Amino acid sequence: MSDYKVIEIKKSVFENNDREADMLREELKRDKTFLLNLMSSPGSGKTTTLKATIARLKDEYKIGVMEADIDSDVDAKAIAETGAQAIQLHTGGMCHLDAGMTRQGLENIDSDAFDFVVLENVGNLVCPAEFDTGASKNAMILSVPEGDDKPLKYPLMFSICDIVLINKSDVLPYFDFDMEKCREYIRLRNPKAEVIPICARTGEGIDAFAAWLERNVKEWNNQ
Amino acid sequence: MSDYKVIEIKKSVFENNDREADMLREELKRDKTFLLNLMSSPGSGKTTTLKATIARLKDEYKIGVMEADIDSDVDAKAIAETGAQAIQLHTGGMCHLDAGMTRQGLENIDSDAFDFVVLENVGNLVCPAEFDTGASKNAMILSVPEGDDKPLKYPLMFSICDIVLINKSDVLPYFDFDMEKCREYIRLRNPKAEVIPICARTGEGIDAFAAWLERNVKEWNNQ
Repeated sequence: MSDYKVIEIKKSVFENNDREADMLREELKRDKTFLLNLMSSPGSGKTTTLKATIARLKDEYKIGVMEADIDSDVDAKAIAETGAQAIQLHTGGMCHLDAGMTRQGLENIDSDAFDFVVLENVGNLVCPAEFDTGASKNAMILSVPEGDDKPLKYPLMFSICDIVLINKSDVLPYFDFDMEKCREYIRLRNPKAEVIPICARTGEGIDAFAAWLERNVKEWNNQ
Repeated sequence: MSDYKVIEIKKSVFENNDREADMLREELKRDKTFLLNLMSSPGSGKTTTLKATIARLKDEYKIGVMEADIDSDVDAKAIAETGAQAIQLHTGGMCHLDAGMTRQGLENIDSDAFDFVVLENVGNLVCPAEFDTGASKNAMILSVPEGDDKPLKYPLMFSICDIVLINKSDVLPYFDFDMEKCREYIRLRNPKAEVIPICARTGEGIDAFAAWLERNVKEWNNQ
């Protein structure tokens, strides 16, 4: 199947996003659906990483993907080609998704049918960090060309993520990126975050990320 | 001088940002101070581009720089080392600058003393596009590793910019980035935008950007 729906997301009407997010998380736990909120800057490789991860896990798990973007269907199309079910969420200019908006997406993807669903958030290191989407876990991608100093400049994003993937490791020789310094800056913001260097294009590190995802999906669904 | 002030920016109290922005622009025109609003994703090379441009122009022009960041003084420190006057604006988590916030910065940098001032906005392709800062011109940087499809995904940012710099051209051989396709997507969003491929690290294209800046500063100050 390489079909996908396009949903125009509406602004949430809920005043208390944290309460909405907790409610959504409890519902997802009851339904045994793990939801991963995947965040990054524009162009860090969220979609390519997802494609590589889906290829690794699609025979064992039923996977749904919600692609949030201000405009265009480029990403949902790419994901649908992997065979995973994808929908495209258009945020109408909004810079992040909150729990109410995430719920609108889940209602359009029949989330009960999946072992896990990935929300690819809007490409933005600032606003998505401020809104709990109701996800089971938060993941982010930092790509090598962006620089090793990003945990210093975007502290909240790094502090709320359970895992940080450092993507595009294949171009390390062409950039001034100090992996150890980057790990140290991430630890400074969030000592508990798991850090995995990956290269979505070559497949490096995708096994480790897939293993982390499997472990978390299983823990969630057995709770 | 490698000194810089750090200003904690407060939320604007003005309800009508467009009116505030127009007022600020008129004041800057009267004072013969050109203000460039420079935007991009995190890690696209705003600061490195500015450093290269300042090196090219600092003997002929008095240049001030306002570095907006959520946290850290990394960028103001780097700019101050060039000899240009720099201040660091901390936005306290806010994802963009509006005209009122820009004014707070200008009041702290003695803007009358400069031929031009550059505002390095928060690294974000979404929110800064929605708020007129009162700048004379808007510039943005798209870097090669982010991908040539960004004008499709972040339409507003590309449509409000007078010039788009395509940075990190030195790594073109290592990425699937089609320069002609990117130019076409930019034209689709904004037929009037000037597009200049640059490499801030090697200096490629900096002469062309500096010439664009000089031309616009002169036009502004003669109006």
